[in-house]
Amino acid sequence: MKRIAVDMDEVLADFSTELIRRVNKKYELNITKSDVLGTPLHTLYPELTDDIFEIVNTDSFFRNLPVIKDSQEVLEELSHHYQIIVATAAMLSPNSFTAKYDWLREHFPFLNPNFFVFCGDKSTIKADYLIDDHIYQLNTFGDRGIMFTSPHNVNEPYDLRMDNWQELRTYFLEKANVEV
Amino acid sequence: MKRIAVDMDEVLADFSTELIRRVNKKYELNITKSDVLGTPLHTLYPELTDDIFEIVNTDSFFRNLPVIKDSQEVLEELSHHYQIIVATAAMLSPNSFTAKYDWLREHFPFLNPNFFVFCGDKSTIKADYLIDDHIYQLNTFGDRGIMFTSPHNVNEPYDLRMDNWQELRTYFLEKANVEV
Repeated sequence: MKRIAVDMDEVLADFSTELIRRVNKKYELNITKSDVLGTPLHTLYPELTDDIFEIVNTDSFFRNLPVIKDSQEVLEELSHHYQIIVATAAMLSPNSFTAKYDWLREHFPFLNPNFFVFCGDKSTIKADYLIDDHIYQLNTFGDRGIMFTSPHNVNEPYDLRMDNWQELRTYFLEKANVEV
Repeated sequence: MKRIAVDMDEVLADFSTELIRRVNKKYELNITKSDVLGTPLHTLYPELTDDIFEIVNTDSFFRNLPVIKDSQEVLEELSHHYQIIVATAAMLSPNSFTAKYDWLREHFPFLNPNFFVFCGDKSTIKADYLIDDHIYQLNTFGDRGIMFTSPHNVNEPYDLRMDNWQELRTYFLEKANVEV
């Protein structure tokens, strides 16, 4: 059975929507998703960089992230044809460990926690595929990467990009010779 | 540069010594390391199994583990010739995440946290070598495993075993063609 490694933030968990919501609330701003297309929030508002890190590096931030559309249903279906591991770069925000674990158990109860991996650099992950929003992680990963579209990466060139979980469903079911 | 994945409990952190100390204290027992040679504590005292899990699955347990003899000096020396990753099966005790991270930062400050991996099954780890005390992890890992001797595994047959960090030092420096 081939193995798919799935990133968490921006692939399963809607990190950017929640970050914008919190920053808007705290600073009474009206930033929208289209404002941050191709430009991370901390580049748009460099004076907020430290504060953004503080907002993000909390248990409550990660525990309350919305789930990315269709990720639950599609991942459950794919788990019958692939071994699924969740590989998330948690070492940059050590306060997020428990929240990330609890969030995954709540929203993806069909996944085996024995195949959750909290890492940093994804060259440490052994899998056939990696679905990720970060070009750095896709490049450091040794096997087939798939860039998952997120506001910050829309202008990033990469040879295999998917915009949503329905596209991922079709791609992986076809590869497994399952009727789509 | 070849990559060595190093397990944490019983390889860097002296899990069994601390567990015996806590169980002895709580139940006024006099268990010694020689009592648990080849027999895990929970097999020796099955009535304590749940309680042992409760003792272990705490922040304070993992935060206060003693460091295994010579592991700091040898790992620092090896880090000049190999890429070192720490791969620990933290998913079985989710309360341990932060303590494990803080413990590693305190006792192994020369290691890059971007190469810490908190996982479950070590088939998810990409490395050339894995130093581990568990036969299950050594077998599931795809590349060269090295069994690190620990009280519970003394009777476990495995084709490559090391009893201490000086043996690991010699093995890896010779492999890297460095004068020992």
